[in-house]
Amino acid sequence: MATPAFSDDDRHFMRVALSLSKRGLGNVWPNPSVGCVLVSSQGMIIGRGFTKPGGRPHAERVALDEAGENSRGATAYVTLEPCSHFGKSPPCASGLIDAGVSRVVSALEDPDGRVSGRGHGMLHDAGVTVDVGLYNNEASRINAGFLSRVMRGRPLVTLKLAATMDGRSASNSGESQWITGARARENGHLLRANHDAILVGANTVLADDPTLTCRLPGRIDQSPLRVILDRKGKVPPSAKLALTSNSVPTWLITTEPLLDEVSEKFAKSGVKVISARCADSHFDLNDVLKQLGEHGLTRVLVESGGLLAASLIKENLIDRIVHFTAPSLMGADGKAMIAELGFERLSHIPHFRRTSIRAVGEDIEATYEKITD
Amino acid sequence: MATPAFSDDDRHFMRVALSLSKRGLGNVWPNPSVGCVLVSSQGMIIGRGFTKPGGRPHAERVALDEAGENSRGATAYVTLEPCSHFGKSPPCASGLIDAGVSRVVSALEDPDGRVSGRGHGMLHDAGVTVDVGLYNNEASRINAGFLSRVMRGRPLVTLKLAATMDGRSASNSGESQWITGARARENGHLLRANHDAILVGANTVLADDPTLTCRLPGRIDQSPLRVILDRKGKVPPSAKLALTSNSVPTWLITTEPLLDEVSEKFAKSGVKVISARCADSHFDLNDVLKQLGEHGLTRVLVESGGLLAASLIKENLIDRIVHFTAPSLMGADGKAMIAELGFERLSHIPHFRRTSIRAVGEDIEATYEKITD
Repeated sequence: MATPAFSDDDRHFMRVALSLSKRGLGNVWPNPSVGCVLVSSQGMIIGRGFTKPGGRPHAERVALDEAGENSRGATAYVTLEPCSHFGKSPPCASGLIDAGVSRVVSALEDPDGRVSGRGHGMLHDAGVTVDVGLYNNEASRINAGFLSRVMRGRPLVTLKLAATMDGRSASNSGESQWITGARARENGHLLRANHDAILVGANTVLADDPTLTCRLPGRIDQSPLRVILDRKGKVPPSAKLALTSNSVPTWLITTEPLLDEVSEKFAKSGVKVISARCADSHFDLNDVLKQLGEHGLTRVLVESGGLLAASLIKENLIDRIVHFTAPSLMGADGKAMIAELGFERLSHIPHFRRTSIRAVGEDIEATYEKITD
Repeated sequence: MATPAFSDDDRHFMRVALSLSKRGLGNVWPNPSVGCVLVSSQGMIIGRGFTKPGGRPHAERVALDEAGENSRGATAYVTLEPCSHFGKSPPCASGLIDAGVSRVVSALEDPDGRVSGRGHGMLHDAGVTVDVGLYNNEASRINAGFLSRVMRGRPLVTLKLAATMDGRSASNSGESQWITGARARENGHLLRANHDAILVGANTVLADDPTLTCRLPGRIDQSPLRVILDRKGKVPPSAKLALTSNSVPTWLITTEPLLDEVSEKFAKSGVKVISARCADSHFDLNDVLKQLGEHGLTRVLVESGGLLAASLIKENLIDRIVHFTAPSLMGADGKAMIAELGFERLSHIPHFRRTSIRAVGEDIEATYEKITD
């Protein structure tokens, strides 16, 4: 169908819905994080919703419940096509129809094979006006993790970097607390809150024994699960990530030959042990991400050392970068934030597109994304 | 005297004068770069001036000449105390008195021993109202190079850094053209235009044979002079910096024992050869900068490799940093933009204060200054 002409009101209400949709990020996997705004024929917002933790209830259900009887004749702004399949709850498309909503403005068709057009179709067949495509790009960016899981079979991967001006993430004696200031570290914790999982290598666990939780006031329950890559089965059950896995889930990825042994080692701890393929004594990182996608993850934050970061970059698997730069210099004896990449020619090194830049306290936060076109 | 109360008009006209004062930077050494605005009693700007290339005529003279007879009864806004000594031209204080200016608003007392208060005193004694201290900090920042030469006996030193996100300034095969984009390189040339000199090490000259001129349209004549540090006398007279020293001056600093030999080598070329002290087979960089200060330089831009940059940082001789970050990653096999600094503890590494941040094309430009308090 032709792209409908949207009004300024449409744009305004969809922006509200997009803003709501961000609130679920990191807490709704394997589901998308959707925002919904219900607007009466008088142009009043009568219901708002975003996908609740764990992925349910859906945004539309929350907004419909808030609006109640007023939904009749209202317009619904949704950042993703309403679902059409009966899962743990009735489909949102039916919910909107039953509530008497007269028009649905939707940002994006859901690529999920169980939906992809059927939600819009159900609404249309029931006599609801359906206009699709408003703020399509913005909605795609917000749900890039969900879209990645459905369309590429792997989560969106964001690399977090925090270093001095000259790209050093620790002193030569291994000190890294703290290179960036309090404000940047706070933003780092917010990043954790809106990701499904943090990915680290075994070396980071052995060296730092981190907890990797979101330590912002009131947000501890938004801590992402922790995924450890441990090809050699070196991480002990006494690691903090293992000891705390009942409050914040920890997954450990090892190789097929070590799967039984490692599973047994963590049998009592609640750590979920998964296997992924290896090649040339390295993890096949494509397979690692495929495993994570199959287990439902949509947004993964890499907070690893320079070796794992370099391996992901070489494999072209980094979709986004969040780069914190401290106003300090460490010199070449400091620890490189990215290990060897092996590019001989300048024209071959990986380039990204800057998407934002701002001051956070005394540091700089710049964000980048992969250049796909 | 107590700080006078300045009016909004005063602030406005001084900001115009400050803006003018920046236009001479890089072209007026060993003099300060001053701005002057003459305002009639009706509040009209009747004369503007900034220090002309080579340091003369002074800003006040230029503004007075523009205003002519209208100067009578006017107020002069000057970003630095008018000079009081007879040099190649009569002192500006006399000029202002003779022109009948009734009030002088001055940002800053001149620390130059031949002036320091005498200019303001001459004006006061002649019945001119003198108000000192408006935008004192801004004026000091703009003339930080001149103030450094007079008060510390050395130029202000700005380090230019251009590197990938992970702090690499060249590939492992030595390729560095171009890491940053066209816009950032343009800004780099503007930096050259507003500095008196560029400082590089002999290794950079031997490796890259650069010209280090300002290649912006219409600004080639604002190219700074080029200073080469050459402790071992390795730079040949066939280097481009030597061959072009008649159009853009080149200075070469070597050690006392090599002074005669190196001077002879460059006798025909027009390269000025200077000696500086060495210690432990390194240049005494404090002495190097002292020599440059004694030869009149006020603003030096360091565009060196990682070794000279590291030496200057270790000696705490970097006053400002201009840091261009490209949206790319090179990995640890790329060339470090700063060589080893030898700090074991994170608490010992040098910190700077960020003074600006902006996007320049696809790159980021951040500026920093030394923390002095």
